[in-house]
This record gives sequence, C-alpha cells and structure tokens, in this order.
Amino acid sequence: MPTLRVEMFAGRTVEQKRALARELTDATVRALGVPASAVEVMFFDIERSDWAVAGKLFSDPSAAPPVQT
Amino acid sequence: MPTLRVEMFAGRTVEQKRALARELTDATVRALGVPASAVEVMFFDIERSDWAVAGKLFSDPSAAPPVQT
Amino acid sequence: MPTLRVEMFAGRTVEQKRALARELTDATVRALGVPASAVEVMFFDIERSDWAVAGKLFSDPSAAPPVQT
Amino acid sequence: MPTLRVEMFAGRTVEQKRALARELTDATVRALGVPASAVEVMFFDIERSDWAVAGKLFSDPSAAPPVQT
Amino acid sequence: MPTLRVEMFAGRTVEQKRALARELTDATVRALGVPASAVEVMFFDIERSDWAVAGKLFSDPSAAPPVQT
Amino acid sequence: MPTLRVEMFAGRTVEQKRALARELTDATVRALGVPASAVEVMFFDIERSDWAVAGKLFSDPSAAPPVQT
Repeated sequence: MPTLRVEMFAGRTVEQKRALARELTDATVRALGVPASAVEVMFFDIERSDWAVAGKLFSDPSAAPPVQT
Repeated sequence: MPTLRVEMFAGRTVEQKRALARELTDATVRALGVPASAVEVMFFDIERSDWAVAGKLFSDPSAAPPVQT
Repeated sequence: MPTLRVEMFAGRTVEQKRALARELTDATVRALGVPASAVEVMFFDIERSDWAVAGKLFSDPSAAPPVQT
Repeated sequence: MPTLRVEMFAGRTVEQKRALARELTDATVRALGVPASAVEVMFFDIERSDWAVAGKLFSDPSAAPPVQT
Repeated sequence: MPTLRVEMFAGRTVEQKRALARELTDATVRALGVPASAVEVMFFDIERSDWAVAGKLFSDPSAAPPVQT
Repeated sequence: MPTLRVEMFAGRTVEQKRALARELTDATVRALGVPASAVEVMFFDIERSDWAVAGKLFSDPSAAPPVQT
C-alpha cells in the first residue's frame, strides 16, 4: 500500500513492465513521500477484443480513438 | 467514464462481446444521458475453476446454481 | 455472474442507478442469453477529485474532456 | 455477496483453489453469520512478471520479500 | 499477496471486520501454506442502493434474494 | 487506457492526489511511450480499519508494518 493496478493492452514485454513498475514506484515515492517498499504494482493485460469505447471493441477496424495505448 | 467491467465465464465469442459492448453502452446512454463516447467497457473471462459460490467451484459437478452464466 | 461493476462520477440519484441497473441487466440478457437472475450490478461513485485523464483531475478547471460523464 | 476476489501468484492447482474457496467461505460464515450460499469467491492468477514490490518484479532475482506467496 | 478484496453490504462494525480479517487470513494460510504476513485483506462497504441482482437494487422492497449478506 | 487504479490510505489531500496523478501519468508516458491523453488514473481512499495485513487491521495498535503508506 499504496497498491497500483495497471490495466493496459496486452503485448508489453517484461522489459517494459519492469521499467513501468520502477517508474510508477518512483513517482509514488516522490508524490506521497512513502518508502518504495510500501508500493505495490500489478499489471493486467487486456486484449483489444476485451476493451471497448463508444460501444466498439478496440480489435474492430473502426474503433474510435486512434491513440496508441 | 462511466467505466464498466464485466466478469463472466470464459467462452464467449468476440461476436458476443461485440454485441454486449454495444448493448451495455446503449443502456448506459439511455439511463444516464451521457454520450456513447464516454462509455468504456472491459471484459474479464473467468474460468469456472476460478469462481465459487457456497464454497464450491463452478467447475465441480455439484456447484449450486444451475443458472447458466 | 455475469457481474458488472460500474464506476462513474458521484452524484447520480438512486432513481438513475435503479434505471441503470435495469437497463444493464436487460442488455446483458439480450446479448448473452443468460437469465436476469444471474446478472449482478455494482455501482461505485468516484469523486471528480479522484479521477484524472492526461494527468489532470476532473475537479480541476482545465481537465481535458468536456464530455459529461 | 459478500464477494471475495483473491489475487495470488499463478500456479495453484484446482485442488488448492477448491480448498481455499471452501475455507474462505467457512471463514466468512463464521465471522459475519451469513449463509454459505451468499458467499462468492473469485480467483485471479497473477504472473510473477506482473507483480512488483518496491519497483521490482517478483520474477526478477532480487525482488524483495522472500516470503512465498 | 495473496490479496483478498471483500465487497459486502455496508454496516459491519470494526469488530466484525477485525474478526473477518483474521478468519480469512487463517483460512488462506491453511489452504495455501503461505505465511500470515503475506496475506492482505481489504474491505469495501457497498450500500444496498449500489448493488443489484436481476436488475433490482437491494435497497428496493422487492429485491430478489432474501438471503442476508 | 492504460488505466491506473491507486488504492491508498484515506487522508491524502487533493494537492497530493493532483501531484500523484501527474507523476503517474508522466511515468507511464516515459515507460510505455503512450500519449498522456491515453492515461487514466483513479484514486480509492481506504480507511485503516478496512485494510489488514497478517490478519490485523491497520487501525489496530499492533498492526504489523510500521511503514507509512
């Protein structure tokens, strides 16, 4: 605690997750003044066919935001 | 936002998820008056051996509710 | 099961939640063919000062999306 | 309801989950006085490369707590 | 880790939560063989007007399951 | 997406949450290369009487980790 749960599109490598875990932990330490050992991070890979915005799956061609996430 | 997370038994097809994402989005638009673009839906497939009621896994023969979910 | 968790801005009335619970349940029944009795819905009210996009809290003036949610 | 969501390292067998679902349900019945049929349990397997403490993934050699979980 | 999140109707006392935290922790230790220090429990109080089954809020008179939870 | 949910002890000010939202967003942008506009952050305040480790509530005197979180 604090515990961070990160939901993102599947496909990130372990290297990216390793970097993200470190960056998020450092960010939390800076903003809250807690020790790094108190910060927990969990990653959840979500398939594009399991995530929708505006009623459209991200796996479908016309899915709205072209934003890469 | 609103963000809807849907946990259901694994096994649904992408077609079913596509239909469900659209139906849930429409339902939210109707009930809350928000634009469809504000509605996010996420699906989580849960195996029957990862879900229990009354202390029994749904993958076990005697698991209580015969309700199909 | 299916279980739907809905996170949305705080401030909706019980009437709105009642309507949303019914609409979401009907939508799930239509899309998946499960009985209504199998559908569970939970609402989570999130304050605008507890929700951020692009690093800005929705309670702050310049918070990005003008979309009402 | 009550609904218990259990996040733990991936690798537990169905036998372990079956035992855990029963134990957790019994524990809830004892502490709250609810009927077992009201208790729902869901398991989420988390890979060690998806869980970090102190900014380090549990899949990495130096990951802090040697505690087995 | 394991981390247990418990969602239940609002209204439980701290004494009940204290007992439940202990019971759930002991149950997890017995079933998985992990040390108690590895078990984390979080409680989430849900109002009856924020929980629905079969499209009906538990705060409404006719809400289905008479089961006390 | 990515969506970050942060559970932490209740008591942080809006200023702290504002800083944390910005730091976490920047951290995600750096580690994953996504645009800031794609990063969503949600905060959940957890009372000490709703969080336990080793079967003890953090609101109780003897609760284990002296770590400030």
